[in-house]
Amino acid sequence: MLSENADILSLRDANQRFYDAFGSLDMAQMDAVWEQSDRALCVHPGWQPIVGWGDIRRSWQGIFNGAALMHFNIHYVNIAVEGNCGFVTCVESITSVVEGQAQGFGVLATNIFVRSGPDSDPRWLCIAHHASPRL
Amino acid sequence: MLSENADILSLRDANQRFYDAFGSLDMAQMDAVWEQSDRALCVHPGWQPIVGWGDIRRSWQGIFNGAALMHFNIHYVNIAVEGNCGFVTCVESITSVVEGQAQGFGVLATNIFVRSGPDSDPRWLCIAHHASPRL
Repeated sequence: MLSENADILSLRDANQRFYDAFGSLDMAQMDAVWEQSDRALCVHPGWQPIVGWGDIRRSWQGIFNGAALMHFNIHYVNIAVEGNCGFVTCVESITSVVEGQAQGFGVLATNIFVRSGPDSDPRWLCIAHHASPRL
Repeated sequence: MLSENADILSLRDANQRFYDAFGSLDMAQMDAVWEQSDRALCVHPGWQPIVGWGDIRRSWQGIFNGAALMHFNIHYVNIAVEGNCGFVTCVESITSVVEGQAQGFGVLATNIFVRSGPDSDPRWLCIAHHASPRL
């Protein structure tokens, strides 16, 4: 069972913003979600890992350019906060439209966030996204 | 490039102990690596996620019982420390002997650790292991 405290809720909101950005294929929203650093890491399902915001951003742009619609239903598996770090593991149930064809598929993702800003207005930024196909 | 400071090195040592435990199929070593908590999370390649140490431990016992030999070469992709949290993404090149047959395969893993103990003798415990097949 997930603890429903303020830390967990604000972390879940940040995770949701990640998927809102993804679902709306909006690069400006995705920019606002990520820590734009050399240590940022991204693994798209089945891809080689990408390290560093510059290359990560280019990967999202490529994905966004190739997809006409992405709809996400997120099922939370685990959410934990430790200090200013947060860890979310969730199942992404995705409906995508590519070249006029609707496709449904599942992805398992672990997302790592780091918190900055005042306690009253915490700002979680994603520093790692590791997604893998559900077999 | 990875920063070679003390935090990073001690985190990498902890990650290596995880793979030493895995490679030696030694449950006592694996016990010592993990945070034995309800928030611990483990995703074996292609498996459903497992939450909570009890079930995670049983999964390792099952894997250890089924494998005659596991040899790991670890290639580090990214290592980061933030506060008392550490994040490691690495490629596991695995040689396994199952029922007399040697098999080689690759796995991409993100491992999350939390640090306790004094600064002079930090103790990193694994709270999440998300492994996915390399396609």
